[in-house]
Amino acid sequence: MTLPAEFSFIGRHFRPLSGPGALDLTDDAAVLTPPAGRSLVVAVDAMVEGLHFLPDDPARTIGRKLLRCNLSDLAAMGAAPLGYLLTVSRPPGGDDAWFAAFAAGLADDQATFGLTLLGGDTTSTTGPLVLSLTILGHVAPGQALLRGGARPGDDVWVTGTIGDGAIGLRVLRDGWPDRDGFFADRYRVPRPRLGLALAGIATAAMDISDGLVQDAGHIARASGVGIDIDADRVPRTDRAPEHLELCLTGGDDYELLLTAPRTQAEALRAACHACDVPVTRIGQCVAGRSDVRVWDKAGRPLLFARPGWTHLPDDV
Amino acid sequence: MTLPAEFSFIGRHFRPLSGPGALDLTDDAAVLTPPAGRSLVVAVDAMVEGLHFLPDDPARTIGRKLLRCNLSDLAAMGAAPLGYLLTVSRPPGGDDAWFAAFAAGLADDQATFGLTLLGGDTTSTTGPLVLSLTILGHVAPGQALLRGGARPGDDVWVTGTIGDGAIGLRVLRDGWPDRDGFFADRYRVPRPRLGLALAGIATAAMDISDGLVQDAGHIARASGVGIDIDADRVPRTDRAPEHLELCLTGGDDYELLLTAPRTQAEALRAACHACDVPVTRIGQCVAGRSDVRVWDKAGRPLLFARPGWTHLPDDV
Repeated sequence: MTLPAEFSFIGRHFRPLSGPGALDLTDDAAVLTPPAGRSLVVAVDAMVEGLHFLPDDPARTIGRKLLRCNLSDLAAMGAAPLGYLLTVSRPPGGDDAWFAAFAAGLADDQATFGLTLLGGDTTSTTGPLVLSLTILGHVAPGQALLRGGARPGDDVWVTGTIGDGAIGLRVLRDGWPDRDGFFADRYRVPRPRLGLALAGIATAAMDISDGLVQDAGHIARASGVGIDIDADRVPRTDRAPEHLELCLTGGDDYELLLTAPRTQAEALRAACHACDVPVTRIGQCVAGRSDVRVWDKAGRPLLFARPGWTHLPDDV
Repeated sequence: MTLPAEFSFIGRHFRPLSGPGALDLTDDAAVLTPPAGRSLVVAVDAMVEGLHFLPDDPARTIGRKLLRCNLSDLAAMGAAPLGYLLTVSRPPGGDDAWFAAFAAGLADDQATFGLTLLGGDTTSTTGPLVLSLTILGHVAPGQALLRGGARPGDDVWVTGTIGDGAIGLRVLRDGWPDRDGFFADRYRVPRPRLGLALAGIATAAMDISDGLVQDAGHIARASGVGIDIDADRVPRTDRAPEHLELCLTGGDDYELLLTAPRTQAEALRAACHACDVPVTRIGQCVAGRSDVRVWDKAGRPLLFARPGWTHLPDDV
């Protein structure tokens, strides 16, 4: 149900974000024609104040993070963005300036990534602000990068650096030092790795949102391979030995985790470098297991305190 | 961010709802190929506990209502369903049996309407339960029914009966009498009017969710026509004169409001009756205004207490 106050709210903040097919956000649904002969890729993410962002995080980066997390899901599938829908459930007494900044951040990123708002819904809630964003993208049929295609012998790769976002959260939440705001920025404004031409090169892909080790477990289980990671090879901005575990198990990287046969190593590097995206080989897929093991330079296994890194509990 | 507990929750309740393209809800996004040569139709609705449904509403009908409200948006565009995505932000200590019943209701309606779950996200929240559902549908290019096509002289039609849902809410909330549960059921389980072959017949369409008079205002403004409604012609299950205003301005009908030239009257009736959907002519579009006026049998204007029925406030 849309209340009159919502029409004005939508018109003020969100109509300027709407693009072709959105019908000015005034019809029952959006209508768009996807590029001919392409498959559709769709994902949705929700964010809750106090859980996924902090009440004093700048409004301008919150919408950007939500949009970029979804764009990162498209990147993980090798898909290109088409548009998005947004729902906002806001507590009473909301600050209009907050939403103006929130929308301004979205406008910035729409321009950066070439997509527009297709539709949405706004409601009130008695609880904290809840946002959800559905993203639509497209990919050539049969060319989506899935999690289940890794094979024994494949190399394991990551883009960018791992652990910056987790350190950024500590900076913002616990006052860790961050001289130039680098880590805070990495936490607040992830960089979706869109546009890499990895079809036919990578055998599996996903974006790292919940921590490298846990997320590698998804590829391991989906593909039925073991994954061995050389801790020392994992590219980290902060190489402090005491932060190793945090970087390998903390979330909010939004880098890509990729597997590819050794014969594709140069092609994979070239595809990433064509987009100025650093990529690093960090390990290998092995037969006979479907878990993740992390090894130090001396070949000893590293065991992390965080539970669930080699398997998921049956229930919690 | 997906926590281990969420994997189990998703697997238990939502994986059984997933269909082709959903990749078992274990990949970064869903991949689907829309029917060739069709346009895509997308909409999203959010529902919040305590606002859109009551804490003691049966869980089995809550998911169905959310899905059906979205299907009603597709119906209003003349589109057919393709699939949906769901986000659940749930308070701590949630009752697993509640979600089992919620998912069972969705399973029932998936079978009824021929669609499956494509993807989703679950998070926690410290506030009330927040649900959002994104629906995808398809329509022949250029044949989506929009709100802006009504022309002076067009007749105004509604499907089904108007006001049942508003009375149902009074039954459930205020203890109004409801001998056989008819009105409560109409509130809880709306009937999306999918499948009506109205392209080329109706000039404008929308679904009535916020009350006939307010929603007619959307067509009036989008089309630049005045809409005159004969109160006495509006089909109502409860014809009690004292409930007229409630029925015409209350929400939760999820019937279609249609306009069509007089020459299409028989075609419109035939298209609705082919789907066993009652349809009734309730008024006319006129030139020179873009508001909604309701008239009694004696030709006197009916003015309702509820604000905003002829225009929206500039701001609230």
